[in-house]
Amino acid sequence: MTKALRALFLLLAFSLAATAQAAERRKVIVDQDAFEGPGLQPILMLLQDPTVDVLGITIVSGDGWAPEEVAQTLRMLELIGRTEVPVIQGAIHPLINSKARNTAREGQYGALGYRGAWTESWPGDNTMKRAPFHDPKVVPPMEIGLPKIAARPGSAADFLIDMTRKYPGQVTIIAMGPLTNLALAQRLDDDFAGRVKELVMEGGFFGSTSTRDEFATQVAYAPRLSFNHFWDPEASHIVFTSPWQTLTLVTGDSSAPTRAGADLLARATASKRPVARYVARTAQPGFPLWDEVEAAAWLDPTIVTQRGTLAMDVDLMPGANYGALLTWPAGKGPGLGERDVNLIYAIDVPKIEAMFVDLIGR
Amino acid sequence: MTKALRALFLLLAFSLAATAQAAERRKVIVDQDAFEGPGLQPILMLLQDPTVDVLGITIVSGDGWAPEEVAQTLRMLELIGRTEVPVIQGAIHPLINSKARNTAREGQYGALGYRGAWTESWPGDNTMKRAPFHDPKVVPPMEIGLPKIAARPGSAADFLIDMTRKYPGQVTIIAMGPLTNLALAQRLDDDFAGRVKELVMEGGFFGSTSTRDEFATQVAYAPRLSFNHFWDPEASHIVFTSPWQTLTLVTGDSSAPTRAGADLLARATASKRPVARYVARTAQPGFPLWDEVEAAAWLDPTIVTQRGTLAMDVDLMPGANYGALLTWPAGKGPGLGERDVNLIYAIDVPKIEAMFVDLIGR
Repeated sequence: MTKALRALFLLLAFSLAATAQAAERRKVIVDQDAFEGPGLQPILMLLQDPTVDVLGITIVSGDGWAPEEVAQTLRMLELIGRTEVPVIQGAIHPLINSKARNTAREGQYGALGYRGAWTESWPGDNTMKRAPFHDPKVVPPMEIGLPKIAARPGSAADFLIDMTRKYPGQVTIIAMGPLTNLALAQRLDDDFAGRVKELVMEGGFFGSTSTRDEFATQVAYAPRLSFNHFWDPEASHIVFTSPWQTLTLVTGDSSAPTRAGADLLARATASKRPVARYVARTAQPGFPLWDEVEAAAWLDPTIVTQRGTLAMDVDLMPGANYGALLTWPAGKGPGLGERDVNLIYAIDVPKIEAMFVDLIGR
Repeated sequence: MTKALRALFLLLAFSLAATAQAAERRKVIVDQDAFEGPGLQPILMLLQDPTVDVLGITIVSGDGWAPEEVAQTLRMLELIGRTEVPVIQGAIHPLINSKARNTAREGQYGALGYRGAWTESWPGDNTMKRAPFHDPKVVPPMEIGLPKIAARPGSAADFLIDMTRKYPGQVTIIAMGPLTNLALAQRLDDDFAGRVKELVMEGGFFGSTSTRDEFATQVAYAPRLSFNHFWDPEASHIVFTSPWQTLTLVTGDSSAPTRAGADLLARATASKRPVARYVARTAQPGFPLWDEVEAAAWLDPTIVTQRGTLAMDVDLMPGANYGALLTWPAGKGPGLGERDVNLIYAIDVPKIEAMFVDLIGR
C-alpha cells in the first residue's frame, strides 16, 4: 500500500465508523416552548446523551413568547458550546385561540390557574422568574446576556417537514409545549405525520396518582384542562387526529411526584462543567420535572412504571372546556379521526433523578 | 271538672302534643327518578324515619321515564301501607336535551357509559332488571303488579311551589335525580328557591376517593360527566344559579365505596315487616348505595367524614362536555350567578349500612 492509499483507506474506515456511529444515534427534533429553567433543562438532557442526535430545536409560544424563547435557547447553546444545533422559530400565536379570546373566556368561565405568555402580571408564587409582560415580538434583556448567534431562517414547520423528508421514519419529535408547529407542518404536508418515527408529547392529568400539588391546582377544578393543550386546542385536535406511526403522551401524573429541589439541583450541578454551570446559573428550585420526565421516559423507557392506552381528542367548543382533553376507552371513540394514544402514567422517581444528575453533570 | 270538660281537656292536651311532635318532624319533599330498587330504597329510608315528614314524592324522568316511575312509586306505597303520601308526576323530558339530540351527540363524541331512560337495549351487566325500551308515556307490566291508587293531579313543579308557600323556610328538598322539576319550579316562581330550607342533590366525581368501580367507568373517561346533570344540563344550570338558602351536593365519591350486597340486603330484610318484605321482593344486589347515601347524609349528618365547598355550574356547550360539572374554588367563579355549593365527599360506610338495615327493617 502506498502511503497515500493507506491514508485514504484510514480516512475511509474512520469515516465509515463515524457514519455507523451516527446512524446508531437516535434522531430527535425537540419542539418546545423553551423558557429558561424548566423549559431548557429537558433539552439539555437530550443534548447531553451521546446516543442522541438532536437535529434541531423548534420553538413555539406557550410558557413564553417564541422570540424570547428563541433567544434564551440560543444563549444556552452558546454558553454550553453547542452552537452547531439549529434553533428554528415557530408560531408566535395559536391557530385560533388568542390572548383576547382567552381573556373574554376567563370573564365568562372563570380565571385560569396558569396562562403562560398571556399572563399580564405574575403572582408572587408558583411562577418562574421572568421579564414583565411584553409584546410577543420583543426580546427583553436577559440576566445571562443576549445571544450573539441567530436562529436558522425559515419556519419550525418547514424544518420539521424537511428533516422528516431527509430521514423518513427515523426522526422522533419530542413536543414539550403546545402543538402549533406540528399542526402547521401536518396541514402544510399531509404526509408529514406518517414520516415521523414517533411523536412524544406532554400534558394531561388522568388521576393515576393522587398527587395534586400547588402546580396542579387547576386540575382539581378542571381536571381535563392542561396548558399544552388549552393554549392551542385546534392544534392539539389536528395532532390527535393525524396518522403518526406512534403517538405517546407523557402525562402530568407522571411528573407530579418529582421535584427539582435545591438538593437535586446541587447534585446535578456539582461537576461545574459547562452544562452544569449553565444550569446552576439559570435553574430555579421547586418546580416539578415536567418536561425532564418526558425527555427521560423517551431516553430510557425502563423508567416507566405505569402505561395505558386511550383514544383521545380535544374539546373545541368555545366554552369552559375549550381545549379540555377528551378520552375514550382505546378504540372506542366516535371514529372521527381520533386515534389511540400511548400514555405514560408513572415513572420511577429515583431513576429520573439519577438520570437528571448524570446528564446535567456530564 | 265535669266529665265533658275533662274529655275536652284531654283531647286538647293530646292534640297539642301531636301538633308539637308534628312540628318537630323535619319536612321533606323527595324529587326522584324513582326506579324500583336503588331509586325507591332511599325514599323508604326517609319514609321509615319517625322524625321525618315526607310531604310528597315528586317524580322526574332519568333512570326511567316518569310515568313508569310514578307507577312503581305508587305500588311501593300500596305494598308498605303508606298511601297517604302523595306522589306527583313531573317532567317526562329535559328542558332542552332529548334522546335524539343525545344520540346525535354520542355519534359525534362517543358512546356514554349510561344513558338512563334513553337506553334502547340494556347490556347484560351493570344494569338493573327493567322492561324493554318503551314509549315514555307507556307503563309496562310490573312483576309486583300495577298500582290501584293514582298520582295526585297537577305537576311536580306546582306541588313544590305550593308546599314551600305553605311551609316557607321549613321544607328540605332531597333531589335524587335530574333537576328538571326544580328548574321548572324556579322559573314558574322566582321566589321558590328562597323559600326552600335546603336543597340536597346528588352527583359528580371529584377524585376525593380513588374508587373507580364498574359503575363509575364513565368517570375515568369524562370525569365531570354525571348522569343526574348531563340528562338535563340546562336544568342543572338553573339550579346551580338559583338563590337557595343552602345548596348541598352529595357526590358520587361518597357513595362509591358502598354496596347493597346480598348480605346487607339479607340483614335489612330479615325482619319480614312490610317495608322489609317489599325490599326483599324488589332489591337487586350489587349496586352502590347511591341515593341511600344522600338520604342518610341528610338524616344523620354525623355519618359525613369529608366535606368541602366549591363554586359550581354546568357546561352548556353542545359538545362532548355538554352537562359536565364546572367547578371553581369557593367564591372564585366568574360571578355570573353561580354560587358556592356544600359538597359531601365521604361518609362512614359501616354507619350508612347500619342505618340502612335499621330503617328498612323497621
